[in-house]
This record gives sequence, C-alpha cells and structure tokens, in this order.
Amino acid sequence: MSERRRKFWGWGWEDEGPTPQQQQSIAEILRDRFSIEALEVRKPPVEADLSLPEPRVTPPDSLAAICSSTTYDRAGHAYGKSFRDVVRAFARDYDNPPDLVAFPRDESEIVDLLDWCCREEIAAIPYGGGSSVVGGTEPPADEYRPVLSIDLRELDSLLEIDRESRAARFQAGIYGPALEDALRPHGYTLRHFPQSFEFSTLGGWIATRSGGHFATLYTHIDDFVESLRVVTPTGTLESRRLPGSGAGPSPDRLFIGSEGTLGIITEAWMRLQDRPRYRASAAVTFARFEDGVDAVRGLAQSGLYPSNCRLLDAGEAQTAGAGDGSAAVLLVAFESADHTLDAWMSRAAEICRDHGGSVPDDAVRTVEKQEGARGGAAGAWRNSFVGAPYLRDALVAMGMITETFETAITWDRFAEFHAAVMQATQNAVDEICGGGSVTCRFTHAYPDGPAPYYSVIAPSRPSSQLDQWSEIKSAAAEAIITHGGTITHHHAVGRDHRPWYDRQRPEVFARALQATKNELDPKRILNPGVLF
Amino acid sequence: MSERRRKFWGWGWEDEGPTPQQQQSIAEILRDRFSIEALEVRKPPVEADLSLPEPRVTPPDSLAAICSSTTYDRAGHAYGKSFRDVVRAFARDYDNPPDLVAFPRDESEIVDLLDWCCREEIAAIPYGGGSSVVGGTEPPADEYRPVLSIDLRELDSLLEIDRESRAARFQAGIYGPALEDALRPHGYTLRHFPQSFEFSTLGGWIATRSGGHFATLYTHIDDFVESLRVVTPTGTLESRRLPGSGAGPSPDRLFIGSEGTLGIITEAWMRLQDRPRYRASAAVTFARFEDGVDAVRGLAQSGLYPSNCRLLDAGEAQTAGAGDGSAAVLLVAFESADHTLDAWMSRAAEICRDHGGSVPDDAVRTVEKQEGARGGAAGAWRNSFVGAPYLRDALVAMGMITETFETAITWDRFAEFHAAVMQATQNAVDEICGGGSVTCRFTHAYPDGPAPYYSVIAPSRPSSQLDQWSEIKSAAAEAIITHGGTITHHHAVGRDHRPWYDRQRPEVFARALQATKNELDPKRILNPGVLF
Repeated sequence: MSERRRKFWGWGWEDEGPTPQQQQSIAEILRDRFSIEALEVRKPPVEADLSLPEPRVTPPDSLAAICSSTTYDRAGHAYGKSFRDVVRAFARDYDNPPDLVAFPRDESEIVDLLDWCCREEIAAIPYGGGSSVVGGTEPPADEYRPVLSIDLRELDSLLEIDRESRAARFQAGIYGPALEDALRPHGYTLRHFPQSFEFSTLGGWIATRSGGHFATLYTHIDDFVESLRVVTPTGTLESRRLPGSGAGPSPDRLFIGSEGTLGIITEAWMRLQDRPRYRASAAVTFARFEDGVDAVRGLAQSGLYPSNCRLLDAGEAQTAGAGDGSAAVLLVAFESADHTLDAWMSRAAEICRDHGGSVPDDAVRTVEKQEGARGGAAGAWRNSFVGAPYLRDALVAMGMITETFETAITWDRFAEFHAAVMQATQNAVDEICGGGSVTCRFTHAYPDGPAPYYSVIAPSRPSSQLDQWSEIKSAAAEAIITHGGTITHHHAVGRDHRPWYDRQRPEVFARALQATKNELDPKRILNPGVLF
Repeated sequence: MSERRRKFWGWGWEDEGPTPQQQQSIAEILRDRFSIEALEVRKPPVEADLSLPEPRVTPPDSLAAICSSTTYDRAGHAYGKSFRDVVRAFARDYDNPPDLVAFPRDESEIVDLLDWCCREEIAAIPYGGGSSVVGGTEPPADEYRPVLSIDLRELDSLLEIDRESRAARFQAGIYGPALEDALRPHGYTLRHFPQSFEFSTLGGWIATRSGGHFATLYTHIDDFVESLRVVTPTGTLESRRLPGSGAGPSPDRLFIGSEGTLGIITEAWMRLQDRPRYRASAAVTFARFEDGVDAVRGLAQSGLYPSNCRLLDAGEAQTAGAGDGSAAVLLVAFESADHTLDAWMSRAAEICRDHGGSVPDDAVRTVEKQEGARGGAAGAWRNSFVGAPYLRDALVAMGMITETFETAITWDRFAEFHAAVMQATQNAVDEICGGGSVTCRFTHAYPDGPAPYYSVIAPSRPSSQLDQWSEIKSAAAEAIITHGGTITHHHAVGRDHRPWYDRQRPEVFARALQATKNELDPKRILNPGVLF
C-alpha cells in the first residue's frame, strides 16, 4: 500500500496540482497576458537535492520515540506555504530547518517537550498544518538556540459531542476534513472553511484567528470557541465552557490570535452548526465595482446576515471563471437548517437591485441543499478557490510573482483606502515587474466595513524573484497601514507582518502582551520572532 | 430653578420612586405574602445624618477646581447600588467614603489626576454612573491609602458620527439617555439598554461587559465596540477603528471587562443600529417552564436571531404583571429597520408551538414600531423592569432582603444546574428567613446555552439584614460555581464576586492578567480590590 504524502516544499499532496500539460497551458496564457517571451517551468526540489545542517540537539531517551530528524520531516517543517516559502524551496534554500520535529501523542508529551525546551534552551515552534503564509512556523533566521518544531497532528480526535448545546470537544491537531468527517454522521458541521481547510488544523485556526466561509456574523473562528485548553511553559489552562460571560476580560481572547507565542492549544470546545438543509443564492452582476460595494454595505447593515456575500471585482471574477471581466460579481447566499429562505433572499435581491445590480430571475428561490453540487458562477468560484494554492505553486515554478494580502477598513474610508492600496500596488508591480495584475474581492463584510482581499500576479526576473516580491509586498503593506487598515484580517501576523503590526499595535498594549509573555514563557522558548 | 438631584444613598432621582402611599400598599402585600406581623418602613438617610471622616488628602492647586469634598459627593460615591450598599446607607454607615471626588473635564485632566495619584500613592476608583451591584466603585475596606473617586460625567459628548459605517465616537462618561438623545436626530440607536440604562455610562458598560437588551447575537456591549481610547497610569492607548481584524489578540478585549483596574476608558467608537421601523412580537405561554426552556433553545439555534427572547418562570411572570402565576411566559420579538418580519415571527411561532407554547393568533404580524407604546405582557414587563431598582430600595427600607444574581450555562447542564441553584437558594432563604420567593428568567439566550437570572425576595430580621443576605448570596454563588456556571454573565465581578471569580478564573490566566496589571499600573493605584 503506497502512502499518500504531503509535499515537503509546497502546497498539498505530492500527486495533486496541475499536470505538466496543464502547466504548459498556464504558461501559454501567462506568456500572452504578460508578454513574456521565455517562460521556464522549473522543477520542484526532491529530497536528494537537499543537504540539511546537522541537528544541534538530541532528544532525551524519553522523547526520542516522538522526535524525527529525517530530511523529509525537517524540510517539511522549515517553511509555511507563502510565496516566499515556495520560492525558497525552489531555490533549494534549506539552510535553517528545525533541528528536530516532534509528534507528541498526548498533552503530557507536550508538557514534557516544553519542559525539555525550557531546560535546554531550545526554541519551540507549535505546528498545526503548516499553512501559514506569514512565516508563522519557520525557525527565525537569527535564532541562536536549537529549534524544535512541535507538530500536533497526532492530537486528531473528536473527544465529545454535546448535542443539546450543539458543541463538540476536539483535540487541537485535527485537520479540517477529519473534523468535518467526524461531525457529519451526527448532522453537524463547524462550517469553518478557510482556503487552507484541507491542510490546516483547528488549533492553528484558533491560534491565528482564522477567517472562515461565513461572510457575515461568524467571520472568524473566534466566535465559535466555547472554551480552550492551553499548555504553557509555566502551567496548563482550561477555561470554563460557557455560552457567554461577563467575568473579567475573556481568558480565551488572550490565546485566540496568540500565534503559538503564549502556549500550545491542545483542546477546544467548539460551537457547531446544524448541517444546512436549505439554500438560496444568486450571482449578481454590477457594471461598476463601486455599486457592488454599496450593495454589500446595504446587505451588511440589513440584519439579514447572508452566509455568503463575496464581491469580486471584474478582474477577479474573470480569473475565477465567474464572469467575463466586464463586470463585478457579487455572490450572495443564505443557508439554514431551520427554515426556507425566500424572504431573506427576496429582500437581499431588492437591496442589490436598488444599487444597480443585475439579479437573475430565479435567484429568489430556496432549494434543498445538495452537498458539492454547486454550479454556475458560485461553483466556478468555489473550485477556483480550493485549487488556488496548487496553482500558486505552479506559477512560482514559472517564475511569476503571486501574492495575496488582505485587510479590513471602515466603509467611510473604503473608497480612498482602496484607491490608494490599488495604486500603490499597481505602481510597484509596474515599476518592478513592468506590469502585472492587481485585483480585489471582499471575503467578509461587517456592518461597519468590508474585508478586502487583494491578489497580485506579475512576471519576475527569476534571479530576483524574492527581492521583487518583497518590494511589492512592502508597498502594499505600507499603503494599508498608512491609510488606516489592519495589516491582516485573517492571515495572521507571523514574522512577515511584524514591521507593520508593530506600527498598528498600540504601544501600551504591546507592553501588556510582553508582560504576559514574560510571565507565561519566561525563557521565551515559544515561537520566537512571532508577534514579539 | 430647582436642580434635580440624584439620591446619594440609593437608586435614581430624589423625587422618584414609590410614594409613601405606594410604599404602604407594598408593605401590605408583603405582610400577606410572607406572613410578616410588623413591617416597619424606615426612613432613608439625609446628609445631616452623616458625619464623614476628614479627607486624608488635599488636591494640588492645579486640580483643586475639579475635586470635591462635599458630603453629598463623597457619600454619593461611597457605594454602588447593590442591596448591600443600600442597607449600609440606611444604617448611616458611611465610615469609608472616598476622600475626594474628582470631575475631570477632559482627558488631560485624567492624565494629571492619575499622575498625582501615582506620585502621592492615592488609590483611584474610576466612576461612571455608580450603578455597580458588585461593589465595583467603593473604596476597599482594607485600603491604607487615601482614595480618589474619578467621576467621568463631564466627558459626556458625542464627538463624531460616521454615517457610512454606522458608527459614532463618544466620550466615555456619557449616560445612556444622553447617548440615545444624541443619536436620535440622526436616525440611529446604540440599542444597549441595561436595566441601569438611565444611571450608567458608556465607559462603565464597556469596563464591565454590560449586558444589553438584545436577547440574542449582540448580547454584551463587547461586540459594539469598534475601538477604544484608554488612559493608563503609564500611557494612553488608542486602538484602530476596524470592522474586524486578525492581527494578534484583540487590544480592545483586554480592556473590555477590566473594570477600571488597567486604565480609564475615555473614548470609544461604537457600532450603531438604524432605529427599528418594524416589529413583530408575541407573549407565548407555557404550562411547563421546561417546555419554555426547550423553545428558547430551539429559537437560539434556529438562526432567526430574535431581538427579544426572554423566558419568565411563572413566579417571575406574575411579579412582573406579565402572567397570573400559573404559567411561564416567553416574550419573543423581532425588530428591523430594513424589512418586515412575518417570515421570522412565523417560524418562531412554529418553534414555540412545537414545544407546547400557546401563541396568540395575532402574533405573526409585523407592525410599524411606535416608540414607548408597548402594551400587554411585554409592556407590563418593561415597566416593571425599568422601575425595579426604585422598588428594590423601597423593599430595603422595609427590611426585606432582595437580591438578583445571574449566570450562564450550556444547555446540556441547564436542567441539573437550575435545579441545584434554585434548591440551594430556596433552602438558604427558608433556613435563614423562614421562607421567601426565588424566581428565574432568561435574560439572554445563546445557541449553546441560556443566561438565567434569579431574583430573591424574603423577609429579614432588620438587625441582621446584611448577614442574612450574605448567607443567601454565598449559597447561590457557591451553587453556581460548583455546577459549572459563570459567577456573572453581565453584572461584573467587582469586589463582591471575587471569591467565586478567583475559583472560576484559570490560574494561568490570573497570572497573565496580574503581569499586565503590574506593567500598566505598577503602583497599583487603579481600583484596588477589584478583579485582583
């Protein structure tokens, strides 16, 4: 029996992604679109290409059985899945992998690992699915201590279901598909579907304030967390299961978004959804992106709470196969396990029409939901969404620059903000790459503002792919921070966003967090370089 | 022109509350209900009754103009508005008032006051409306330093409205009615109506994680906070206005619920609601409380998000004039500025009927909302809700024990929890007072559990009113914590809930908070004894 393996160097399974023929077709499209004369499709690294530095530390006998120093494991935990990570992988740049990778099988082994790290001054990097696109799981370049990557994949169980409260207790290392598989027979879903869903874990979602697929209301994982268990270097914490509380600042909210710097999340009670039975959806077109923006604002402030409310600008719609590039497309949908949705969708359609949207005649109709059977623009968009990370790696192989960055901003400032971010990024792309595309979609919408998500594709000089990317990334981040946005709405801070996060984070709060860090992790072993 | 004054010793205006005749009628009802032979109506204190200790500190010249040492101001800031506070007021027990009360007019004066407190080792107690029922604003009994109460009432302005994002920036000392008055001409409402609404402030709501009048979804003030300004003894913080963010742990969530121990909230950008135009409501009766509980669970998990979803047990319904004492009553309502609500109410009515509820025939009808014109059971309940604190003070004057306590618990544990809390409290009341009533309502409902709110009325021996109350309070709190609830869903921790909060709060989190406290308030001047 051949075991299916994850790529150590990029997104997903070794046997998935565009075929060589598909890659050639993509290369031809890119040649035409960006007038590139020669587009080389480079080969990804194989283990034999690599010669990793010797591990600087040996585990004690008691932990040896759960620690690995194989090339595959160390290389596979050296990077996350950002553009920069994959470029470095293609360059066979594996000079700074973790010295060891641990696969603890239970919480007590995590405690033992952290004890060992504290004793021996070893940096410990909590690792979920490794899908970070912000350098959240890589050993920092300036770390003088040995580095242990702690992979939580063995903590992968559903432990308990509470049907009355519609909640379940999971181990934190469970992957998205396994989590949904475990809930499906019970009629439940967590319904948290980040783009990384297939290769990311519950604990990783919580640690990074992951954004899910509800476009309104329950946008981040935050609100689904009922309680947490967290192992810190100085003790283990378990918060009470409570539907709500007003007893002091929330303990959970300190660890949600702490990105592995304060402790390792080992378990969580999560709020679930009934599997939806009814669905009503529409792909609404807007000749002007601005009108689509106003419609999203109307929907976000209506109290209808659509489950999907994603606005794609014309370019983004075309790329996703959800439009012909002449109009913006708004994917709006409602779903429910409890009631039909005609009244909801009907009012949403009115709001869209009031703002100049073209709503299909059959939009206002509740259908019984059939899983995986989405067609039309919404289906095209979904397939494109799930396949995007594989495609991104293929583009890297061709020497393209691809980057996505995302933020949130209040409605009053959106128009100016958006213009500034688009212009700064397009200017950077034009200057640095001689052209390229910058597109935008809204991933989430709040009553007080949208969460815009920008995608960049541009040709690069292969020799300076990273430098060019870095300049574009900086120009975009600078515009976001200068014009009042957040450096991340749901990709987290990691190491890559640090310069801008440090400007965004109020100084008094930085001191408060630092004090907490010193208290819980006095040896500063946990994920050094992230957040702090 | 005679100025309307707040009572220094209890709830509300000096010229409001039950008249002497009304008090006599209440006394007669109580005599019958609890078989009390002689019920004396005591007189509340007047200023001339009091002889406060001399202030132990004099303000510097630069701050003298905003500091008061009058008996009225010091006595008025000596206590919050709990049962215990009013009993002590009736006992003329004013041995430990703040030495001074400051009324800063702007943020710079708050900075100056905190600087002075740090320099001179003076304890500083932030004071909003003083409506705490948990000892959140009183000088601690064991405080050896002079105490300054910092009353924020002068910071009472609406500073800015952002119509596009539907948000407004307020100074934190603004009272509920002034806040709503400022928003009304613009067509907005914050729609946060705690029972203390008339005599509490925005900053107080945020500092204590106040519970509002939305029964589902936006239950606490927490979710309405878009950004904060906070003055700490070691610097001022302003968070970014963002509709959502995933950049590290939320700065706002550290200060939301910090109860004046980490800093003084001076401003906040708040998310607003359009003033509702449509409303659909029903008073549903259930012969069995348990069936009402199941109906609330069904509603909370339906995705309908009713704005009101308050279940009163039979006793509570009778007390509020919303029922005859034979059945539980569920007040369920939807409201919207955007759409009619027939589909919502229709499905809610089905859910109620499915669980044995009696739904009035005219329930499923959207009406145009008329402010202040609620009739029927809902209107009766609302009047009773708003008048309750005045009534409570009158009951104290008659030597009764009245107490309310509230919590939250997941659905799976509710039945056992509720039985245990009711029994522990009723047993305590029976043993200590020879009888009394214990009733329950749900103030808020979540998909994973309700927030039950308990009310106690019992006769006491006037000589030991506080000791008796304390025994009942302890029995109830003990049952709540032992059976897995939170010591408070929205009344905050203050000083009174400390013993149980300390058991609820995970030790690792306590250390994290303590480290933050040491960093932001190294002299520990801010609200000593609260939370820590």
